[in-house]
Amino acid sequence: MSQDLLHTYRSTLRTRIFRKMAAAGLDSLLVTDLATIRWLTGFSGSNAKLLFAGDATSVLFTDFRYQEQVRQETSGIATVILKDPLPVELASGTFRLGDKMALQVEHVTWHEQQQLSEKLGHLEFAPVSAFFDEFREINHIEELDRMRRAVALSETVLEAVIGMIGPGVTEIDIAAEITYRHRKLGAEKDSFDPIVAGGPRGAMPHAKPTAAAFQPGSLIVIDMGCIVDGYASDQTRTVAFGKISDEQREVYRIVREAQQLGIDAAKAGMAARDLDAEVRNFIAAAGYGEAFGHGLGHGVGVEVHEAPRVGTASTGTLREGTLFTIEPGIYLPGRFGVRIEDMVALGPDGAEPLQRFTKELIEL
Amino acid sequence: MSQDLLHTYRSTLRTRIFRKMAAAGLDSLLVTDLATIRWLTGFSGSNAKLLFAGDATSVLFTDFRYQEQVRQETSGIATVILKDPLPVELASGTFRLGDKMALQVEHVTWHEQQQLSEKLGHLEFAPVSAFFDEFREINHIEELDRMRRAVALSETVLEAVIGMIGPGVTEIDIAAEITYRHRKLGAEKDSFDPIVAGGPRGAMPHAKPTAAAFQPGSLIVIDMGCIVDGYASDQTRTVAFGKISDEQREVYRIVREAQQLGIDAAKAGMAARDLDAEVRNFIAAAGYGEAFGHGLGHGVGVEVHEAPRVGTASTGTLREGTLFTIEPGIYLPGRFGVRIEDMVALGPDGAEPLQRFTKELIEL
Repeated sequence: MSQDLLHTYRSTLRTRIFRKMAAAGLDSLLVTDLATIRWLTGFSGSNAKLLFAGDATSVLFTDFRYQEQVRQETSGIATVILKDPLPVELASGTFRLGDKMALQVEHVTWHEQQQLSEKLGHLEFAPVSAFFDEFREINHIEELDRMRRAVALSETVLEAVIGMIGPGVTEIDIAAEITYRHRKLGAEKDSFDPIVAGGPRGAMPHAKPTAAAFQPGSLIVIDMGCIVDGYASDQTRTVAFGKISDEQREVYRIVREAQQLGIDAAKAGMAARDLDAEVRNFIAAAGYGEAFGHGLGHGVGVEVHEAPRVGTASTGTLREGTLFTIEPGIYLPGRFGVRIEDMVALGPDGAEPLQRFTKELIEL
Repeated sequence: MSQDLLHTYRSTLRTRIFRKMAAAGLDSLLVTDLATIRWLTGFSGSNAKLLFAGDATSVLFTDFRYQEQVRQETSGIATVILKDPLPVELASGTFRLGDKMALQVEHVTWHEQQQLSEKLGHLEFAPVSAFFDEFREINHIEELDRMRRAVALSETVLEAVIGMIGPGVTEIDIAAEITYRHRKLGAEKDSFDPIVAGGPRGAMPHAKPTAAAFQPGSLIVIDMGCIVDGYASDQTRTVAFGKISDEQREVYRIVREAQQLGIDAAKAGMAARDLDAEVRNFIAAAGYGEAFGHGLGHGVGVEVHEAPRVGTASTGTLREGTLFTIEPGIYLPGRFGVRIEDMVALGPDGAEPLQRFTKELIEL
């Protein structure tokens, strides 16, 4: 049922994409990035290309390994099991390519572009970038449902692993538990390698877990997510292990208030950079302006990082139906860091967080 | 100590690469694939480019996030922390690029190639493919040591998870345990997603683990590996769960003999396709020629799949110092499959398997 709803939605999306192609003067378009292909068709195989052909038909190409899987995962889309390399297949005359074919310039290798040019020398190739972002940014209710399930699953895991933090336990121990429990509870996999960063490592936003045991008096940043039915979750909590200082407590309070401010301030129609600025100004006013070195958030969908970016350099507008993270942080190099992150769905009345996990400071 | 040995070796490698560039008439070369960069420098960050410049200096480019890590992981190589995009930095005049710069055609996007062309319009760009294979195929003793450690760690995990197979246990359960235990024992991560395929799914060489519980009377294919200090392992065993048929037992015997034949027949100097053919002919003579649908093996190093390929289409020669897998299989669609795989190091006296794990049929 829900699978059918999503297939219907995907079909609608493909129609919209043909319309955008026509408006841009593109006769055909070859989609080469797997995340976009999964979003548009449901197919999760590791070898796939998707052609939007000149006669308003779309065709999915894969190989014999995926013959069965592509049948199970897709609906209403023509599939070709490739025997020859794709450029040869495209040159066979079977497909209407027109005069001008668009390629995803960041998702096609120079080699692929050369091969296509060689076999389809009469075509003009047009590079396109971020072509699908405007569509991917808006989430169907069924996509939101999958992300809600990913969040709920990952929160169960978060609760369990927080309970495992103690003397002698290491960052890697907790990271390995997160991966394991995501999988055991039914996630496809992590949506990214978990970040578990204690003490000074918490001041590095992208720290890799180490074999270091947690030290009393430290803050521990845990940033994690999983994939459920093709859709990602992403959340961060920071917890205290042992007795922490007044300064650590105060920084936690500021980040928590800043994060809540971001949730409260988010409105459909506002510029993404304005939302970032509200939170950034709040942190700066609290005296930590230099310590918040990354953007406020990012979209989530079939990928854990996708459009829109919500940061100082953002140029877009936040639209109803967009799902993105709100994740301010304060990082004091060599000392400690705090980050708190929820995913929020932007509706007519503002932003609704998908996470339910407490943001009260947990002290272990 | 061992780290120093490897850094010395890497420096030697870079000298050989400059020599090959000179012979090929290339003034400079930009390395864009992360595995090759890790192999040549030790750097494991997610953002890196490596320039072989015209004055025989090599320069590693990354960003501020990796300032500390690049210092810890590399030695004897100049590093630039990028502030501008790489094409802008390269156009600054700081680096000797000459007239002709090679790009890894399979590892550079069309976008990157366009950006470089735009900023460095006076240069000729030459696509190179498989440029490093001849060097990566031969393994230094320190590289072998890392792979031996990865194998030993992964065999410990294999033994543990085989002990967990029982009624009600699923493929995903075992796959999740493999990932978890690799990590807990000190591996960086899996070298690929574990394959745990029971019964009919064992007939799919690349089956994804499912939530299906193991059924009595089935063979279970377990294909797994991990990364230790940057180097990969890869091994497969097939075990029996419950009472299996005479046919299943016979197929197991054939695959085991075929695999041993491959180990015994491998010699430095022989054509890779000839080794594949010996094993393939043996399986065909036993009546299962159609059921062995993939190549005999592949090289392993910083990546779990690298040159050389050992298969029917191979054109190269197996050289002393090469490490590759020997992994024949028999796959009977809809029924069952058997695969047995070791990594072997090719020395002057033939092939030495790195794995010690029994190939006697384990019956659970």
